Amino acid sequence: MKIAAIISVGTEIMRGKIDDTNSTFISKFLKDCGIRTRLRLSVEDDIADIVKALRFCDEADIVILTGGLGPTDDDLTREALSEYLGKPLVFQERQWELLKVFFKRFNRPIAESNKKQSDLIEGAEFIPNKNGTAPGMYYNKDGRLFILLPGPPRENQPMIKGDLYGILKENGFFSGEIYTRVYRLYGVGESTVADIFTGFDEDIQIGYYFTTGGWVEVHFSDFITGEAGKKRVDDITKKGLSLIDANNIFRTTDNDLSFITMKMLDDTNKTVSFAESLTGGNLSGELVKNPGSSKIFNGSVVSYSNDMKMNVLGVGEKSLSSFGAVSESVAREMAEGLKKITGSDICISVTGIAGPDGGSDEKPVGLVYFGYNFDNDSYVKKEILGGNRQQIIQRTINFVFMEILKHYSYNCE
Amino acid sequence: MKIAAIISVGTEIMRGKIDDTNSTFISKFLKDCGIRTRLRLSVEDDIADIVKALRFCDEADIVILTGGLGPTDDDLTREALSEYLGKPLVFQERQWELLKVFFKRFNRPIAESNKKQSDLIEGAEFIPNKNGTAPGMYYNKDGRLFILLPGPPRENQPMIKGDLYGILKENGFFSGEIYTRVYRLYGVGESTVADIFTGFDEDIQIGYYFTTGGWVEVHFSDFITGEAGKKRVDDITKKGLSLIDANNIFRTTDNDLSFITMKMLDDTNKTVSFAESLTGGNLSGELVKNPGSSKIFNGSVVSYSNDMKMNVLGVGEKSLSSFGAVSESVAREMAEGLKKITGSDICISVTGIAGPDGGSDEKPVGLVYFGYNFDNDSYVKKEILGGNRQQIIQRTINFVFMEILKHYSYNCE
Repeated sequence: MKIAAIISVGTEIMRGKIDDTNSTFISKFLKDCGIRTRLRLSVEDDIADIVKALRFCDEADIVILTGGLGPTDDDLTREALSEYLGKPLVFQERQWELLKVFFKRFNRPIAESNKKQSDLIEGAEFIPNKNGTAPGMYYNKDGRLFILLPGPPRENQPMIKGDLYGILKENGFFSGEIYTRVYRLYGVGESTVADIFTGFDEDIQIGYYFTTGGWVEVHFSDFITGEAGKKRVDDITKKGLSLIDANNIFRTTDNDLSFITMKMLDDTNKTVSFAESLTGGNLSGELVKNPGSSKIFNGSVVSYSNDMKMNVLGVGEKSLSSFGAVSESVAREMAEGLKKITGSDICISVTGIAGPDGGSDEKPVGLVYFGYNFDNDSYVKKEILGGNRQQIIQRTINFVFMEILKHYSYNCE
Repeated sequence: MKIAAIISVGTEIMRGKIDDTNSTFISKFLKDCGIRTRLRLSVEDDIADIVKALRFCDEADIVILTGGLGPTDDDLTREALSEYLGKPLVFQERQWELLKVFFKRFNRPIAESNKKQSDLIEGAEFIPNKNGTAPGMYYNKDGRLFILLPGPPRENQPMIKGDLYGILKENGFFSGEIYTRVYRLYGVGESTVADIFTGFDEDIQIGYYFTTGGWVEVHFSDFITGEAGKKRVDDITKKGLSLIDANNIFRTTDNDLSFITMKMLDDTNKTVSFAESLTGGNLSGELVKNPGSSKIFNGSVVSYSNDMKMNVLGVGEKSLSSFGAVSESVAREMAEGLKKITGSDICISVTGIAGPDGGSDEKPVGLVYFGYNFDNDSYVKKEILGGNRQQIIQRTINFVFMEILKHYSYNCE
């Protein structure tokens, strides 16, 4: 088995300002490629230290370095690898032109200091960076592979998932390929999923972990060669999914709920609007993050205060004073009022207590009423959601999108 | 300044199953103690690899190892340090008795394998573990300090916070502390800040990096002893800030713009509402993420469609057909309409093109009109913002909060 070493470079890591999640991500990726990470190091942005770390990795077949590819004087990883390999950095006019285009596209002025991001180690190849200014780089030295990646996860993760696989293959670092099926499970914790899969003893890898977006991500994966391997993973995945379904867990493919909802609305020519209280705009905002949402989204009313609920949505003063803003009646009237204003096919209201203050024994933090009006069929649901303020808001949003998808029995496969 | 190395041991780290948060926590703790973490390594549960890692840390004054102190055959960190130091492990009857009490307290049967958790390196001292079975250990070898800590954070963090401080002090490793001033800069890139600080040759650390929230974070920091050191950093920070101010860059302390804005509105008893088109609720949502926002936020209208702009905000059909939804006139009418509905002291509208589609030569992606109404003083501003859809939305939000803070000349220090 091939042996890998990972070197993460950055003073903010060494001061404990950020977790070194890059090394975790790369370790996991390599494991999935059948490569064993035997050594990981983190050092400051210092040429001597980076070179020392590189020398310590002499036994590794693959050395991956992250961080320190920025435009500033502090960014020295490129220079350190050049020194270690004994190969000069050569300015690449073509890369500089590409960088200029990148800056122009985002209307940002390019600085002279960006020039060094067009330097390439002699004999190395660039790995293009679609999400930032620092390209990656790889160099095969007598069968040992050196890979440089930028530090920001949103720049290096697309490179790892998109390019690294091909680079490893091309350089003879593995023969099979990994085949993965990913699903998202809502309304459950990681341990519930662990319990469900206890005894599910199939010879593929099953991973699951809880995400900040409020779902558990489940991976079914294996190294395969050819279609037969693929079919094997597919078959076992199907068995795994039936276990999940037997537990009545809402699941989707590996896409955002808001994206799936938008697609469903687009497919069925439906429009949607929201009357938001506790989510304060975040529910609409989640939908609008998806390009093309203007086709299915008319707009919303963020009725945070009671005045907005009465004046804009026409909620009755009596309902507010008798039952309070967080009540079944008010949720229903918010959705009905929204329907009158927007005429959207689907009108949904949310009113609740996001906390940390404002809760009581009768109406605790996390209590949410959902007013639904689907094609004039209207009803109210109630949930008590756990978590902190942000998590309660996020879970409220998830509940709304799930209800829309369930209502129209949309196939989320 | 003393130099530290951290070695985290554990196969689950090396397979990317968990983040190495222990190293982050310890780095931060050491930084706060004025000790510089110069090297971090992670290795598998393997004696040879751990010893090799220890040898690589020969220049460090302090070496902290975490993980691999459990009762199983896989747990080998104790043995590895014993081998490296050339000091035998000696069974400690008293520790074994304490361990038995611990197990009894939790009604758990003690296993023979737990015995090795009572082994102590000859000449070392135990660090008691109140939350688990594996005690820590420290050993001063000719002025170099070796510290062993268990892997689970809930076991090692109380030791770090409770005992390590005293151990460092007792062994003469503690003199100064680090002192840091952090600022956020808006509307600039990392490289611009790099250019500004070129030639700013002061003897403290200045770090800056671009964040996903759309600001550049600038750190001024140094190891100090006493008030004089603090003053030195403060003075240099002041000089650095004046460089930033000379370039007309908007800056705040290390807090979210939405939080600072909320605080300002709360301080001055102002209420705010938004009429959101391209931001689609995310502007309101950003404000509402802060607990306590209900005092200053009445609500908003997310007028995504033209119908919503006309029916709810009263924007003229003629303005929409003559100038289009993304225009100065419509921005102004949106803000005016919002004022009528909400009566909020501050009414702000945003209308623009978030992309990726919908742009033209005349109205490119990133074009945004901001309609401002501050205490009935109203005006419109226009910006062309760079980035992808999400970045354009985020920058629009930042511009709005900046304008509010600028309008009231709020002191963001």
